[in-house]
Amino acid sequence: MTEEMTAKLEQLAELQKKMYAFNYASSSIYLDSATVAPKDTEEGRGEALAILSEYGYDLATRKETIELLEYLNEHKDELTPHQAREVELLLRDNEFMKTIPVEEYIAYQKVLSKADYVWHKAKAENDFESFRPVLKEIFDYNIKFAKYYKPDQNPYDTQLNMFERGLTMEKCDKFFATLREHIVPLIKKICETSKNETLPVLTGFPVEKQKELTKYLMDYMGIDPNHCVCGETEHPFTLEFTKDDVRITTHYYEENFEFSMYSVIHEGGHALYELGGADEHKYTAVAGGVSMGIHESQSRFFENLIGRSEAFITAILPKVKEIFPKQFRDITPRMAYEMINKAQPSLIRTEADELTYCLHVMIRYEIEKKVFAGELSVDDIPAEWNRLYKEYLGVDVPSDSEGCLQDSHWSGGSIGYFPSYALGSAYGAQMLAKMREDIDVEAVCASGSLKPIADWLGERIYQHASMYDPEVLFEMVCGAPFDPTYYVEYLEKKFSDIYGV
Amino acid sequence: MTEEMTAKLEQLAELQKKMYAFNYASSSIYLDSATVAPKDTEEGRGEALAILSEYGYDLATRKETIELLEYLNEHKDELTPHQAREVELLLRDNEFMKTIPVEEYIAYQKVLSKADYVWHKAKAENDFESFRPVLKEIFDYNIKFAKYYKPDQNPYDTQLNMFERGLTMEKCDKFFATLREHIVPLIKKICETSKNETLPVLTGFPVEKQKELTKYLMDYMGIDPNHCVCGETEHPFTLEFTKDDVRITTHYYEENFEFSMYSVIHEGGHALYELGGADEHKYTAVAGGVSMGIHESQSRFFENLIGRSEAFITAILPKVKEIFPKQFRDITPRMAYEMINKAQPSLIRTEADELTYCLHVMIRYEIEKKVFAGELSVDDIPAEWNRLYKEYLGVDVPSDSEGCLQDSHWSGGSIGYFPSYALGSAYGAQMLAKMREDIDVEAVCASGSLKPIADWLGERIYQHASMYDPEVLFEMVCGAPFDPTYYVEYLEKKFSDIYGV
Repeated sequence: MTEEMTAKLEQLAELQKKMYAFNYASSSIYLDSATVAPKDTEEGRGEALAILSEYGYDLATRKETIELLEYLNEHKDELTPHQAREVELLLRDNEFMKTIPVEEYIAYQKVLSKADYVWHKAKAENDFESFRPVLKEIFDYNIKFAKYYKPDQNPYDTQLNMFERGLTMEKCDKFFATLREHIVPLIKKICETSKNETLPVLTGFPVEKQKELTKYLMDYMGIDPNHCVCGETEHPFTLEFTKDDVRITTHYYEENFEFSMYSVIHEGGHALYELGGADEHKYTAVAGGVSMGIHESQSRFFENLIGRSEAFITAILPKVKEIFPKQFRDITPRMAYEMINKAQPSLIRTEADELTYCLHVMIRYEIEKKVFAGELSVDDIPAEWNRLYKEYLGVDVPSDSEGCLQDSHWSGGSIGYFPSYALGSAYGAQMLAKMREDIDVEAVCASGSLKPIADWLGERIYQHASMYDPEVLFEMVCGAPFDPTYYVEYLEKKFSDIYGV
Repeated sequence: MTEEMTAKLEQLAELQKKMYAFNYASSSIYLDSATVAPKDTEEGRGEALAILSEYGYDLATRKETIELLEYLNEHKDELTPHQAREVELLLRDNEFMKTIPVEEYIAYQKVLSKADYVWHKAKAENDFESFRPVLKEIFDYNIKFAKYYKPDQNPYDTQLNMFERGLTMEKCDKFFATLREHIVPLIKKICETSKNETLPVLTGFPVEKQKELTKYLMDYMGIDPNHCVCGETEHPFTLEFTKDDVRITTHYYEENFEFSMYSVIHEGGHALYELGGADEHKYTAVAGGVSMGIHESQSRFFENLIGRSEAFITAILPKVKEIFPKQFRDITPRMAYEMINKAQPSLIRTEADELTYCLHVMIRYEIEKKVFAGELSVDDIPAEWNRLYKEYLGVDVPSDSEGCLQDSHWSGGSIGYFPSYALGSAYGAQMLAKMREDIDVEAVCASGSLKPIADWLGERIYQHASMYDPEVLFEMVCGAPFDPTYYVEYLEKKFSDIYGV
């Protein structure tokens, strides 16, 4: 290797470590704000984050960085595959970042840092009006940035690509149409039965006891407590510092043990993905999950395909009965399975059952698409939200808190993220079919530890972190391109069986 | 104002905001690591902190910074008193920082980031040997840095000055001698009585109940929960992001409610100081408490002078009885007061009573002084520790975990800090005497809120943040120089009364 090349590679490593450090700092500040920080502290946090993000922006876009990346890109054939991927990913980020004027980038970071607080308050007080101007700013910045980045492309396609490379509205529309075609009639049939009225409703779960359940579930999933702990927050999320330091969060409701239970399993799925990265990716752009679609495929794999399966529920019921003896005294495994999988149109996405869930996602997708196309103003989001809930799910939305203010994504700037949830669910169903060729999934669920399942995913997905683009990785795992039929068939089989329809 | 001056003042504000942002980031990372982070995560944290501290170092020492500060210092007469103080404080830091070679500064930060973990483990496993090399590095770096900074001054004097400007070994020796002269005979007399055997010992305090007590105490002290919350950690500390965002921490022991109760009051005193800063100091070098001695004067004021007073204990006893009805059923106010003030030689500084506390501090002071003077090797700290505990307190140290591994200060690089605790206690006694000229302290304690006391301190101390050096501030508050007699007389009166000696 030439001396010049050695020096450049050292610079590349140094650049990525600096980016890592700034990400670490922002993540730490975010984690604190979302879990333990006192309420009225957003000003000081916003000031600090704005300055740190300015440093991050400068690192990514400064002349030296661009020259370095371009030099290495021109000498691709001298790089290891890992180094080449580092350069590729950094250049991609750079292409996006360099199109945004620095003042706008910083101004947007300030909006975001304020938005979280404004949204929380608006949601608590059912006051869309107070959130509206901030939400409008966030949509406007995202539309503007998408146009800066790819002036010749539909900005919502650009936006979808930020979370799932390769995704387009055309693909989304086709995918959602397939889902709608099968799910809507199935839900209709289910609603015609009186099954839901026979399912037990349990209440009164002390938080301290729910914390015991969290520990048990994380252990069952094979999550190492020396590298991952669970905090409390309003809207559960997962955050990774490195592959050795991942945090999940949950929210405990006394009246509803399911919310936290499935948040823990869902976030636990994200955590396993991050914890399973190979050491070589550390402190490089390749570290961390490759896309939101793949990430959600892992979280929703554990949440639904495993966590809401009859085998898993049967396996953990004895422990659940031990923790909540009174509530679960008369509950058989089959009853628990049916209760957990109760399908019914509802208001809140994160509390929706597996079957109706995708309809919640579609509503958000339709709204984002329309705002990006200029066909819907942010002012009219509440009305459009309520109209779509009526149309798709048949429910009346009684308040914006239970309507368009329910999710944290938009206030965090994550527009174009929602389709990943549905897509990830469908990815997972196809992965499960592939997994069954190697593993007796039901036997693993019953065995007291999901580790063999996580190991299978780890070998095929986790260890690679961001080495391969999502479409490539998917085909590596499944040996075929993505096909939503697996998911539709899975849902039809599962819910026809439960509801006898 | 000249255009040049306007530009320079803008640069000054920008510089301080950047420093603020890097401090914010490090604080956030530290807070996380000390409260919620999983155990085996120090590597990634160390890498991030090392890079961030390099940026901080560069900001403080780069040519532009020095030129800016020197320019402003030369134009002092054109500055407001606040701006002049900003420049003064920044120059002071700069004088210290610029004497340290950057590689050594970064290497030291790495040692510190590792040290916390190593010390925790060593303490848990009673294994001084595993901590010894790191502790030696920390002492060596501190000695070296002190010599770089002030080559012509005794390095331990330099070290004391980092925490309390103006403090010297000579002053410390004299102060400690006064204390020893009065306290040691008093303790001896107390030990000759059989009073301690008659004091009740209470146990069995559920953590959830203790958390209720924390809330009550913070409220009683007038701490605004929208700007200050309490977390859990091994060794309680207070951390401030801004005057609007302060965190305290405690540790709950099921068998000992006093530990957390007095940690909360102590850290609450630190918090009030930080929360009470005037808005104008925000994002400048003047923000935050001025010295460790003044800081400890505020924390130990609330902990001891107020929190362990008969008036306060009598006032809160009804609530304590409500929270712990079984344990406190038969406890009268006087019994509670005597129980809380039980004086006896012991092993652990943070659990020591008010009277013997200073002897614990003196032992650490003696050891630091000797290591700095080259009269004691780090290898021999355990033996010297145990010898001094026998000599000063008459107790045998059964293990290093309960001996020289008990405190977090050395692993955090805080050598020269300990005297602040004793000094702060003594400052407080003199401030209390002054406060009594304006306020009926006992009546305030009984009134249900300590706010009038905090307001008195706020007007005289908190609002000024770091505007005045500790000696200056002290004289502003008390109208006289520091005189340890107040403290000695306070202790003698209080404990003679309790023990009838």
